[in-house]
Amino acid sequence: MTMKALGIHLLIELWSCNRQKIDNLDYLEKIMSQAAEVAGATVLKTAFQDFNPQGVSGVVVIAESHLTIHTWPEHGYAAVDIFTCGSRVNPWKAAGFLRQELEAGDMQIRDFQRGIPPTDEYGEGDTGFAKHVACGNLNR
Amino acid sequence: MTMKALGIHLLIELWSCNRQKIDNLDYLEKIMSQAAEVAGATVLKTAFQDFNPQGVSGVVVIAESHLTIHTWPEHGYAAVDIFTCGSRVNPWKAAGFLRQELEAGDMQIRDFQRGIPPTDEYGEGDTGFAKHVACGNLNR
Repeated sequence: MTMKALGIHLLIELWSCNRQKIDNLDYLEKIMSQAAEVAGATVLKTAFQDFNPQGVSGVVVIAESHLTIHTWPEHGYAAVDIFTCGSRVNPWKAAGFLRQELEAGDMQIRDFQRGIPPTDEYGEGDTGFAKHVACGNLNR
Repeated sequence: MTMKALGIHLLIELWSCNRQKIDNLDYLEKIMSQAAEVAGATVLKTAFQDFNPQGVSGVVVIAESHLTIHTWPEHGYAAVDIFTCGSRVNPWKAAGFLRQELEAGDMQIRDFQRGIPPTDEYGEGDTGFAKHVACGNLNR
């Protein structure tokens, strides 16, 4: 039986990153938007904030859900999320792109299906990337 | 040994929600901001988008990371994320608040520590809510 998820969500831990890069809001906003495009997603809105004495938080809202990043330059660490739906979008490509851009020495990814109904019968079906997805169109 | 995480991240599946509520952008933007406040977080920015024929996506950037929501009213489903850092913020309170507001018949939460360095020695220490956290101040 096919696992019918609505989306896939990657929780990404990036360590030993380039500390100047992960403390640069403009740069991060640019590459997070690029990461969305690399994944095949449609960027709708972004919201980024920098902190004192260091650190940046940012979100990229895409038609297919979101990307987020929170950085701790003092630790060389960035917490990234990539949540996408739709078979045309590949979050793994975005993950690889970000690892390269941020020059991370270590990357750990935990991946999750989102939106598998609790009433579905689980069995030995297809797993992995979401098989049944639903994404809305813009401009209501 | 204390597990030194930088933040805690809840992945929340809400099923059998009030379908009108989860299709209402203004309402969702309001309650997601309220949820952040219930958790003790500081709201910085929000970005919400509605879709055709239904569905809403939204992010609330907080000083302590973020809250996000993506809804599928046709399924009565909302995917919520609450990622917080800092010992003064309690994401579980926000989860309970949202379940109540959205009148969800079923809620499933998966919780994760974010930012545990790969070099730390894992052992039988304190677990659960992040013991060692770092959050930036605003206004760099």
